[in-house]
Amino acid sequence: MNALLLVAHGSRRRESNEEIRALAAKLRELQNSQRAPFALTAHAFLEMAEPTIAAGIAELAAQGARDIAVLPYLLAAGNHVNADIPREIAAAARAHPRITITLAPHFGAADGVAQLIVEHARAHAGE
Amino acid sequence: MNALLLVAHGSRRRESNEEIRALAAKLRELQNSQRAPFALTAHAFLEMAEPTIAAGIAELAAQGARDIAVLPYLLAAGNHVNADIPREIAAAARAHPRITITLAPHFGAADGVAQLIVEHARAHAGE
Repeated sequence: MNALLLVAHGSRRRESNEEIRALAAKLRELQNSQRAPFALTAHAFLEMAEPTIAAGIAELAAQGARDIAVLPYLLAAGNHVNADIPREIAAAARAHPRITITLAPHFGAADGVAQLIVEHARAHAGE
Repeated sequence: MNALLLVAHGSRRRESNEEIRALAAKLRELQNSQRAPFALTAHAFLEMAEPTIAAGIAELAAQGARDIAVLPYLLAAGNHVNADIPREIAAAARAHPRITITLAPHFGAADGVAQLIVEHARAHAGE
């Protein structure tokens, strides 16, 4: 089964982590309502919240995932994107040798970001 | 004229700020290639980089903007979204009383985020 793991930064603010959980729930709904590219979805946090990346991958593995796409939910490519997340993914790959784990570019690099910015701004513009 | 001001956090990392400038350039291109909802677009940084929000709004005002939609390019609603950006927008509104400035919800709250996550992950998934 294909799985998607959304990796957020994690925050000291409980509300910010709740935003991620709500987004993960929305991702699950999307999978149920569409031709689902991912049979399973989960979320994880890089720091300051749980589940960790290792726990997120272990949970997906326990549910039967065989291919996991990991998507860093970050806008900029800093050390988290370039070093921390790849290191954790490499460790998880060693822990789950029968699972293929693919690391997508961070969310800020997604092709549709500029278009979504314009649509979001238009929906909330003054006139 | 309608204008869009993209407000990013700003980073010590030069490359992260360059990502924002590249995104702002892409926004301008989108405006040129589509029925443009915003005649003008600009970007600004909350901290650690320039232009500031005040400078971004002053620049758009100088170019003839009359309605400016400000879009916080942040994934989570923390103090920046709830306090810092509204305070700077209020100050800019006082400095430019003939301009209508509207603050959109932060980017992470945009309706299309979950859909874009799925598309981005699918485009980069293993198989």
